[in-house]
Amino acid sequence: MSRTLDLTIDLINRKSVTPEDAGCQDMMANILKPLGFEIEDLSFADTKNIWARKGTEAPVFCFAGHTDVVPSGPEQNWQTPPFKATEKDGYIHGRGAADMKGSLAAMLVATENFVKANPQHKGSIAFLITSDEEGPFINGTTKVIDTLEARNEKITWCLVGEPSSTDLVGDIVKNGRRGSLTGDLLVKGIQGHVAYPHLARNPIHESTLALAELANTQWDKGNDSFPATSFQISNINGGTGAGNVIPGELKICFNFRFSTEVTDQQLITRTLQVLDAHKLDYDIDWTFNGQPFLTDSGKLVEATQQAIKGCTGRETVLSTAGGTSDGRFIAPTGAQVIELGPVNATIHKIDECVKIDDLDTLADIYQDILQRLLA
Amino acid sequence: MSRTLDLTIDLINRKSVTPEDAGCQDMMANILKPLGFEIEDLSFADTKNIWARKGTEAPVFCFAGHTDVVPSGPEQNWQTPPFKATEKDGYIHGRGAADMKGSLAAMLVATENFVKANPQHKGSIAFLITSDEEGPFINGTTKVIDTLEARNEKITWCLVGEPSSTDLVGDIVKNGRRGSLTGDLLVKGIQGHVAYPHLARNPIHESTLALAELANTQWDKGNDSFPATSFQISNINGGTGAGNVIPGELKICFNFRFSTEVTDQQLITRTLQVLDAHKLDYDIDWTFNGQPFLTDSGKLVEATQQAIKGCTGRETVLSTAGGTSDGRFIAPTGAQVIELGPVNATIHKIDECVKIDDLDTLADIYQDILQRLLA
Ligand SMILES: [Zn+2]
Ligand SMILES: [Zn+2]
Repeated sequence: MSRTLDLTIDLINRKSVTPEDAGCQDMMANILKPLGFEIEDLSFADTKNIWARKGTEAPVFCFAGHTDVVPSGPEQNWQTPPFKATEKDGYIHGRGAADMKGSLAAMLVATENFVKANPQHKGSIAFLITSDEEGPFINGTTKVIDTLEARNEKITWCLVGEPSSTDLVGDIVKNGRRGSLTGDLLVKGIQGHVAYPHLARNPIHESTLALAELANTQWDKGNDSFPATSFQISNINGGTGAGNVIPGELKICFNFRFSTEVTDQQLITRTLQVLDAHKLDYDIDWTFNGQPFLTDSGKLVEATQQAIKGCTGRETVLSTAGGTSDGRFIAPTGAQVIELGPVNATIHKIDECVKIDDLDTLADIYQDILQRLLA
Repeated sequence: MSRTLDLTIDLINRKSVTPEDAGCQDMMANILKPLGFEIEDLSFADTKNIWARKGTEAPVFCFAGHTDVVPSGPEQNWQTPPFKATEKDGYIHGRGAADMKGSLAAMLVATENFVKANPQHKGSIAFLITSDEEGPFINGTTKVIDTLEARNEKITWCLVGEPSSTDLVGDIVKNGRRGSLTGDLLVKGIQGHVAYPHLARNPIHESTLALAELANTQWDKGNDSFPATSFQISNINGGTGAGNVIPGELKICFNFRFSTEVTDQQLITRTLQVLDAHKLDYDIDWTFNGQPFLTDSGKLVEATQQAIKGCTGRETVLSTAGGTSDGRFIAPTGAQVIELGPVNATIHKIDECVKIDDLDTLADIYQDILQRLLA
């Protein structure tokens, strides 16, 4: 059995549902310590984090990732027990196999092999590992980055192990992500009886055209690296349940995924203009989930493209599509950030799995990137 | 103490929350029997109904009403115990005082006095009493009317004791009601992640313009007897609760209150045209709650106007505004139907009450109507 598979199985069997770590980080630390890493526990509240670093010099290459996983959902819906890694037809099954315990195992094996082959490598290697990536991301990567920034400790190149691949390992690398901004809107009317509409004001009726305008606005056209900014209403709720009552308020939750062509402040201003133009009486709360970031070129991107080409023969595609990741907290420090991990087809689903061969390929690619940057 | 007040207190003290009758109808029957009424129990399932009739000839004057009341809500919010009639500053307090136990007491006293004064009156007097007016109206007045229709027993004039008055007893008489039609609409989209909107179809976004069009349509202009038809969305719900998920469906409940200028079938057709024009993928269930009805003239309206004028000096106003009543089930048989009862300011609220003097006035008006029609 390959060492990468062995470590992946060990990690899957630890039931580390957010924000639990279930011993995953101690297991990783026990592998890194003998290689010369200093392990720093940067846990905050219920979140376990470690910052591990080998070397004191710049440049700093950092593997970033998370040991937590999303819940399994009903276990009886799975073909195999979600928290007992099970081999099946060349795949290893279990919650976290693809997101992202397989990546963590590949990072460890790549580091072991690279350090053994290059005991006197340049710069530093680091691991930034959290148990709260899938959760509210309050006490995880953000807090570790705050700590590093406070002492002016900088990451030069950061490889996040998120499952970026679509069909074949390495076919897609994420070199940025859109920004994310959430609005919680409360439109106020006056409650009443449907038989007496002149005594009421229906917030559902009053909102329809404003929501139509928001849904149909072109916020920008995107650019070479980002698709156009998108607006989506995720939740809408109004009404008492009774069929004869005009509700007094309507709640709406919406989300922007935005490119580098607009700022969060511009989106807020333009949204309020639409709501005001339709004369709505409203309260709104904004939650800012992260600025867009982009690593459009540089040594990290080059090394990654060459390593994927060298190990798999594939020309990788750079993409900024998809959801947010902890890369949004690391990029603002000035680090170059890319995300590279296994095929994401089964992540957050039942029967999550990863191809066993891909685990070794991923370890090879990671090692080759280290070789190109630090050998 | 007046006999009307006495009977009102007796009825309030019986806790007859829908569909309970709590002995109210037996109490009424025990008063009517000695006056020469035949009592027929027409109970169905959990609903207690009686049909009481004195005389076999046409024309038939019928008092219609209900012994059930809506729940009190938290009793501690009441100034007096809701199911113990309590006199206070010239008002009698308790659940059902205004809707409509005071009316039932006034009907009984009016009948007693009229029959004593006119033992040889013309035609027949009847009572149609149910314990399910405030509930789902499945086993109440509809079933009694079905029974009467099946044997071709007709009501000529029907006085429903619903609290029609606004400021002073008799200031408003309802001589019709709008129709009511409810739609439960399910708009179907495709669920997805907000970061991948091109893989989803957001049913909230797709519905906004259709809902705006429905909310802003002029369905008709009403007529001399009815205000314009109104459309109101009472409930709208879409979303999983998660802020990053585009929901797969949107549920909307709406209600039409419609005049005699449109039919329920026309409203359905026009609604579907709007939904189809906006290319929505939807299911819809319709609940028809009653046709509009109107008694725009005739002996019953005349007698009522004259009786109110005679007993109070007031010029009453005919109105079709407000919610539905059981009149909608009686009018389609060809009966002339009006609704006349006490001031409705406190109905369905805490501290429901009725002015004690108004109870005797109401009994006088009811008796005077009988006098004008059957003496
Ligand atoms: Zn992940
Ligand atoms: Zn009533």
